[in-house]
Amino acid sequence: MQQVFCDWGTSSLRGYLLDDSKIIQKYSSDLGLLKAQKIGYEKVLDSVLDSFQCEHDIPIYFSGMIGSKQGWAEAPYVPTPVGIEQMKGKTIKPAKNIHIIGGVSHLDGSGNYDVMRGEEVQVFGVLEQEPATSLICLPGSHSKWVKIEAGQIKIFATWMTGELFKALSENTIFSTQLESKEFNHEAFIQGVGFAREHHDLGSSLFKLRIEYLFERSDKHHFYSYLSGFLIASEIREAIGVAKKVSLCGSDSLMNSYALALEVFGVESKQFPSETATIRGIEKICGENNE
Amino acid sequence: MQQVFCDWGTSSLRGYLLDDSKIIQKYSSDLGLLKAQKIGYEKVLDSVLDSFQCEHDIPIYFSGMIGSKQGWAEAPYVPTPVGIEQMKGKTIKPAKNIHIIGGVSHLDGSGNYDVMRGEEVQVFGVLEQEPATSLICLPGSHSKWVKIEAGQIKIFATWMTGELFKALSENTIFSTQLESKEFNHEAFIQGVGFAREHHDLGSSLFKLRIEYLFERSDKHHFYSYLSGFLIASEIREAIGVAKKVSLCGSDSLMNSYALALEVFGVESKQFPSETATIRGIEKICGENNE
Repeated sequence: MQQVFCDWGTSSLRGYLLDDSKIIQKYSSDLGLLKAQKIGYEKVLDSVLDSFQCEHDIPIYFSGMIGSKQGWAEAPYVPTPVGIEQMKGKTIKPAKNIHIIGGVSHLDGSGNYDVMRGEEVQVFGVLEQEPATSLICLPGSHSKWVKIEAGQIKIFATWMTGELFKALSENTIFSTQLESKEFNHEAFIQGVGFAREHHDLGSSLFKLRIEYLFERSDKHHFYSYLSGFLIASEIREAIGVAKKVSLCGSDSLMNSYALALEVFGVESKQFPSETATIRGIEKICGENNE
Repeated sequence: MQQVFCDWGTSSLRGYLLDDSKIIQKYSSDLGLLKAQKIGYEKVLDSVLDSFQCEHDIPIYFSGMIGSKQGWAEAPYVPTPVGIEQMKGKTIKPAKNIHIIGGVSHLDGSGNYDVMRGEEVQVFGVLEQEPATSLICLPGSHSKWVKIEAGQIKIFATWMTGELFKALSENTIFSTQLESKEFNHEAFIQGVGFAREHHDLGSSLFKLRIEYLFERSDKHHFYSYLSGFLIASEIREAIGVAKKVSLCGSDSLMNSYALALEVFGVESKQFPSETATIRGIEKICGENNE
């Protein structure tokens, strides 16, 4: 049986045509929410289905920001703790053959919320591949760290590391000391080390400027140095006492996080986000299939 | 006797014509280093002197980034601890009537440097007005916190708060939730409170997005909320056990910091940067006057 799965986020749209759980075609574009809402969600979906040359009434499953208030239709947040069963009940159907998976919310002890949309599907996809996982990190613009207990999402928190990296490297004094975006292993590790030995992001940040002024870092390698610093600042705050993490994201980000985690003496295993998304949607929507 | 004092920074140039220590004319423009180095420093200075209609061989004193490697001529950093006497010896003379005051560097226990150029002059200007001061905060793009002992700069550290605020408010997801830049007292205090109760800048930052998503903050007041949050994050890291701070900066920034400090139970007193600059240059260069 054929199905379409889509990970539809804020800035990108990834679609997969599956036949009996096997990917037979892929679609990828920058028609995320920001662009798609101007064109019209139905129209964008039509172009995906056209590219697959499949029937338009095929079962379609969405995860991600497409289920937010600004998306196609709002799929409610499911509060933690969340397992597969809780997720199943919260899928909404804005059209007969379309299913949108809900997000997950977490209320911490201080009365503050955190939320995710799309990552929860990947979390269940990782758990399907590695049921014993107790900590999952999903690096990105808004990195998520997720604690798992008995197959359920128990606690999670978000770091704006990817966005912070972009804003700092492009729109602050750091942009003047940045010549190349090529990855440099040594500079990255040096940045990780710097974040480990200093214990507040705010007070450490300007020291990166000084390192440059005193020629301890240079224009060619500063991009990697800053990346290492910010990723390690996130890890330092998030890792707690854990000694093992499952990573789920793009290959390049997972490699960077794995390198930094190694410096912290933490073991990691990588789960590419594509497979995690597909396995997660299957797991959540498996028995809903039409 | 007439003299010209200039606080010549990266993005602005402020000049004062003094007659027997009294300001008789002021000059202010955006011809900081970034713009001035393209025009030529001598040429820019000529236009300041022309605007004052004074002789061009009048004694002229510069503080700020003009003394950096990228400036007119490099005035060396004076290492901490630094008092007036140490500063006097490090003034350089790129021309017969021109004096550039050196910056100050601090090497911390972990072998990391911090530097300032321009603020040290203001610090001595504040000390001239309030000799008992033991902690001075100079808020700005790169805020400085300076510990004073026996009239000397003993320790200092820099926070990139101003630049971080600009980059975050203009170039991240926060820009979409920001409609007005008008100062809102209540939202500012709410942001201060949020930073006080959360203890890592990195992990708290995304929570400001959630506060907005859950309608605990809104587009009209988010600018003040974010400002309060970032200023309080800086204060929380910098303040230690101090219960009294001297502020030196622009009126609006001093007011914001004073408000936030009040929430922390810290008393503050304000010293406008203009007076501090002039009193500081006089103090450092007083006996050099030609």
